Amino acid sequence: MEQLTNWNRLSLNQITTDMLSLPQAVDACVRADVPSIALWRHKIAETGLAAASRLIRDSGLRVSSLCRGGMFPAATAEARRERMDDNRRAVDEAAELGTGVLVLVCGPAPDRDIAGARRMVEEAIAELVPYAESCGVCLGIEPLHPMYAAERSVINLLSQASEIAEQYRPDQVGIVVDAFHVWWDPGLYGQIERAAGRIVGYHVSDWIVPTPDLLMGRGMMGDGVIELRRIREAVEAAGYRGPIEVEIFNRAVWDLPVDESLALIKSRYLEHV
Amino acid sequence: MEQLTNWNRLSLNQITTDMLSLPQAVDACVRADVPSIALWRHKIAETGLAAASRLIRDSGLRVSSLCRGGMFPAATAEARRERMDDNRRAVDEAAELGTGVLVLVCGPAPDRDIAGARRMVEEAIAELVPYAESCGVCLGIEPLHPMYAAERSVINLLSQASEIAEQYRPDQVGIVVDAFHVWWDPGLYGQIERAAGRIVGYHVSDWIVPTPDLLMGRGMMGDGVIELRRIREAVEAAGYRGPIEVEIFNRAVWDLPVDESLALIKSRYLEHV
Repeated sequence: MEQLTNWNRLSLNQITTDMLSLPQAVDACVRADVPSIALWRHKIAETGLAAASRLIRDSGLRVSSLCRGGMFPAATAEARRERMDDNRRAVDEAAELGTGVLVLVCGPAPDRDIAGARRMVEEAIAELVPYAESCGVCLGIEPLHPMYAAERSVINLLSQASEIAEQYRPDQVGIVVDAFHVWWDPGLYGQIERAAGRIVGYHVSDWIVPTPDLLMGRGMMGDGVIELRRIREAVEAAGYRGPIEVEIFNRAVWDLPVDESLALIKSRYLEHV
Repeated sequence: MEQLTNWNRLSLNQITTDMLSLPQAVDACVRADVPSIALWRHKIAETGLAAASRLIRDSGLRVSSLCRGGMFPAATAEARRERMDDNRRAVDEAAELGTGVLVLVCGPAPDRDIAGARRMVEEAIAELVPYAESCGVCLGIEPLHPMYAAERSVINLLSQASEIAEQYRPDQVGIVVDAFHVWWDPGLYGQIERAAGRIVGYHVSDWIVPTPDLLMGRGMMGDGVIELRRIREAVEAAGYRGPIEVEIFNRAVWDLPVDESLALIKSRYLEHV
């Protein structure tokens, strides 16, 4: 398997430096020669969209994606309409920030009916696609690990994401492969092949053993059991050559001084991704 | 959907009363008119196999299963042989305790090679089947939630369990459906149908939101989001009419006085299972 030899495709997912404001994260990327950043909406809201957009443009950083749209299922039609409005705003923000990819974390069921919630996701994406397309933004469905099915997303397998995405052109709806969410799937490599031409993001972190926490238990690449390089090569064989986002929810990583954290990410990226 | 009207099929999985010794758990079941119990090997070891077996026989309780065999993958051939020896002892114990079902928690990978570990599981089951058959014990493959893939089992979907089990007769290798592990699976109902005639156990608890912990976060039936009755009916439509085990890893449940805990289990069982 072939090692990466430079950081041209490295993107810092902003949640990896959650203690930093957007200006601080942008500065840190520029200092560390990290060429791309993935943005989160709550951080953009802190800075203000116009200021954030100017800051990013001036920095020369590429924006690999905006996180996140989604959270579609809700108990009432009115609540679902509010979610749809918010998703349109997310599309606007993605366009304004200069990224072509809005990551969808599709949302949990409002009750015990998980199949019903999955239908709501499908319907909501159908409604959102024309608007996103008119803004030049591709919706990237990210299947989330099944342990998040009740709280974050009822889309838990690459096969589910593909079943929805395949109803659209690849520039309308794509697939985001996050190794942390899908590494365990016995259908992983077959499903990556199936998504060929439609993958719009590859995210890395690691699965540490023992796993300390459902949300905050992600590890730095190399500290866990995920075959990161094998998955990257499968994603590349499926045609994806875009940014590789490092997305780590982990208090110890968040507490590192940022220059140290980025130096570690850069070395682990070459060694393990 | 039809409610259960009595406790004829209720089985207390011993881990739900983890603070009790085997004699205490047996007494509590008899007091509460719970007709079956599922045993764990570490509890049997505390009491001693012969004494445990006598105690169970004298109590009149039915043993729905013994937990657990498995943990097959290991880094060296010698270590895998030791695991196989231990599995033969587990089969012996199941036979001695009067249950026809040994639950298999298949084990994690010894390294990053999850596909290799899955092959080891398949090979180990092939080796164990003739011995188990000669003892009158069916191996029940229990797929574990994907969040346990790195620490407890690389068999994480009903489809994987069926792919292995279908290589054998249903009396040799069966499937254990634990709602907590499989409720999220978009293929759930199709896979339960596929397992028709081969299901040898149905386990219930609940998935609570927010989920407090990977291992100790299971809830009492009715406290979470799992469609327990719908899953039971699917399991019954697939031909399973055997014991329904209540298996809850949860400190608050463990800390309840046992008579209170069993009374709550009995009422939640009728109300939600």
